[in-house]
Amino acid sequence: MNNFIFQNPTKLVFGKGQIAKLRKLIPTDKKVMITYGGGSIFKNGVYDQVKEALKNHTVTEFGGIEPNPEYETLMHCVTECREKEIDYLLAVGGGSVIDGTKFVATALKWEGDPWAFLEKPIPVTEAVPLATVLTIAATGSEMNNGSVISRRERKEKRFFFNDACYPQFSILDPTVLYSLPQKQVANGVIDTFIHVLEQYVTFDNQAYVQDYWAEGILKTLVNIAPKLMENQHDYDNCSNFMYAATMALNGFIAMGVAQDWATHMIGQELTALHGLDHGVTLAIVYPGVASVMREDKREKLLQYGERVFGINQGSDDERIEQVIVATEKFFRSLGVGTRLSDYGIGEETINEIARRFEERKFMLGEKGNITPDIVKEILHHVK
Amino acid sequence: MNNFIFQNPTKLVFGKGQIAKLRKLIPTDKKVMITYGGGSIFKNGVYDQVKEALKNHTVTEFGGIEPNPEYETLMHCVTECREKEIDYLLAVGGGSVIDGTKFVATALKWEGDPWAFLEKPIPVTEAVPLATVLTIAATGSEMNNGSVISRRERKEKRFFFNDACYPQFSILDPTVLYSLPQKQVANGVIDTFIHVLEQYVTFDNQAYVQDYWAEGILKTLVNIAPKLMENQHDYDNCSNFMYAATMALNGFIAMGVAQDWATHMIGQELTALHGLDHGVTLAIVYPGVASVMREDKREKLLQYGERVFGINQGSDDERIEQVIVATEKFFRSLGVGTRLSDYGIGEETINEIARRFEERKFMLGEKGNITPDIVKEILHHVK
Repeated sequence: MNNFIFQNPTKLVFGKGQIAKLRKLIPTDKKVMITYGGGSIFKNGVYDQVKEALKNHTVTEFGGIEPNPEYETLMHCVTECREKEIDYLLAVGGGSVIDGTKFVATALKWEGDPWAFLEKPIPVTEAVPLATVLTIAATGSEMNNGSVISRRERKEKRFFFNDACYPQFSILDPTVLYSLPQKQVANGVIDTFIHVLEQYVTFDNQAYVQDYWAEGILKTLVNIAPKLMENQHDYDNCSNFMYAATMALNGFIAMGVAQDWATHMIGQELTALHGLDHGVTLAIVYPGVASVMREDKREKLLQYGERVFGINQGSDDERIEQVIVATEKFFRSLGVGTRLSDYGIGEETINEIARRFEERKFMLGEKGNITPDIVKEILHHVK
Repeated sequence: MNNFIFQNPTKLVFGKGQIAKLRKLIPTDKKVMITYGGGSIFKNGVYDQVKEALKNHTVTEFGGIEPNPEYETLMHCVTECREKEIDYLLAVGGGSVIDGTKFVATALKWEGDPWAFLEKPIPVTEAVPLATVLTIAATGSEMNNGSVISRRERKEKRFFFNDACYPQFSILDPTVLYSLPQKQVANGVIDTFIHVLEQYVTFDNQAYVQDYWAEGILKTLVNIAPKLMENQHDYDNCSNFMYAATMALNGFIAMGVAQDWATHMIGQELTALHGLDHGVTLAIVYPGVASVMREDKREKLLQYGERVFGINQGSDDERIEQVIVATEKFFRSLGVGTRLSDYGIGEETINEIARRFEERKFMLGEKGNITPDIVKEILHHVK
């Protein structure tokens, strides 16, 4: 096991009916900005619950934060917050709203152009306090310090980390998933699944508990995904899905182990260039990463295959092939295309992505050995 | 899954060589009291590492905190802390030292006789800040808000919880386990194992990830325990053991599930009356609880047997019998006696323990249905 430092201060408030707790969770002397996305919270009743809970608070609203939250939009929010002297942000939405709100919270404490800490990994440590009411299970942003922001004008998608951006609390009411479009359930399952694989299918870290925990989340998803696609109104399935998504990226399974993230880094470029859903990009890229990097990941691919999909027949090479096929098949079973050609993406994009990694001069993967040429090979594999 | 609220602010600093980080982890303007136990930290080098790291801090020491930390001893520590205006406590030791230090930290902020919050569950919310350098893997106290205190004069062992007692940080260097007496390794494995069972073998909570995580810790312990008994100088085994012990009782596997704790409550009385090691009391009591409560725990006992010990042959009743036997056998494989008669304890103690629960008027177990008569039955079962 590697040495590590871990801390996660976010308070989770989980279960049906918990949104009403907002009343006591946010101090009444705060000037609160509620942030949200395209308005689904008006249809599913979450907006009304939030407003009811905060009826004795000073509250302003900022809506319209897009999927893959847009820099320009968020900068408008920053201006509004400054004008209204906001000192508490409440993100009501999924990962995009939460990530966007983390950016706003950080930008409010940043002097100068905030693009700076997205362009390069400059340390940021301050933020206006923020909390969340989660409405989509997927990114885990509700219990971590990370944020991913898009700038469409430049076709860029960038991330930053800020410990001051751990939400002070996150309310997770699984019933909000009942009305989620099925596409978002599928994307959320894939996002969660790949978050785990990025922290698990690397090399052997002699970290036994962490391995079992990663596998526990994967097995849960394999078990509940078809049931969720069938019936989104089952509380048990929705609560296990929501819980799994949060646990997949709150640092709990990351302690003392190597991490990959090549799939996310490459997928991010597909979103930046073609606007593909985040989950979709992951479903495309992962089978390529696993296939091309199979020698480096050999031991863990075998373990993943055996413990999650019960693959224990055939030679090691055959079993590795089987687990990659099983993974892709799982994604396809959720109605998601797993090839670039499913989205009309070809050679030009592959070359542009490789060029971008060449320009940024950083190598991907748990061993930092994925060169731009290997990125190309990965994308060719999933054409 | 049940509704829940979870938060755990403790920072974990894990790995070899991490004790040196103390220098930066504790602010230099603090007046630090280092607390410890019987002096093993002088032999294993931990004391020297701590002193070296804190050479620029204002430091006082209080040693001699016993296993099952004693109220009278701790009250001396409280007096010393008051005299020296201590405003930071650093527990260097195992669960007893940490629990004792949590009591001191709380008592320092308490007006009146601190026995009050041990005698009855009065809410306590304040404490002097504390941190730990862990030297024994067992209780999980390094990453939770609980503390168990003994008062030998009254033959009482009592607990309290205080959110202000989550350690600010805990340093876990697995190499400190190399020199631990084998008996303490065995006790620590059992303590960790039972912590998990208390949160897992109840009834079906439809909490899939939590179940897998509990089983992951149990399987890790079953795997490494014999290796630890053979060779205590293997870093991988020691780090997995230390990690497992912390993860077993930091709330991570407790979210949204029922909890039992009957074994701990009954075991606590055996320590209060006879001074038995905590781990030993658990190894005795658990097979009795599982056996007598087998109907209430039926589904989870079957799942535990299958997923942890691979028990999948025979009727349900036979499999339940097998898993109880396997559990007891696992404890005995660590050199620990699992019957009251192994320690010369008989009818008189059984009656006294039942009498105590009668007097306190509370029922044990995840369903609150273990009456004093059932406590008697449990203890008769393990005579």
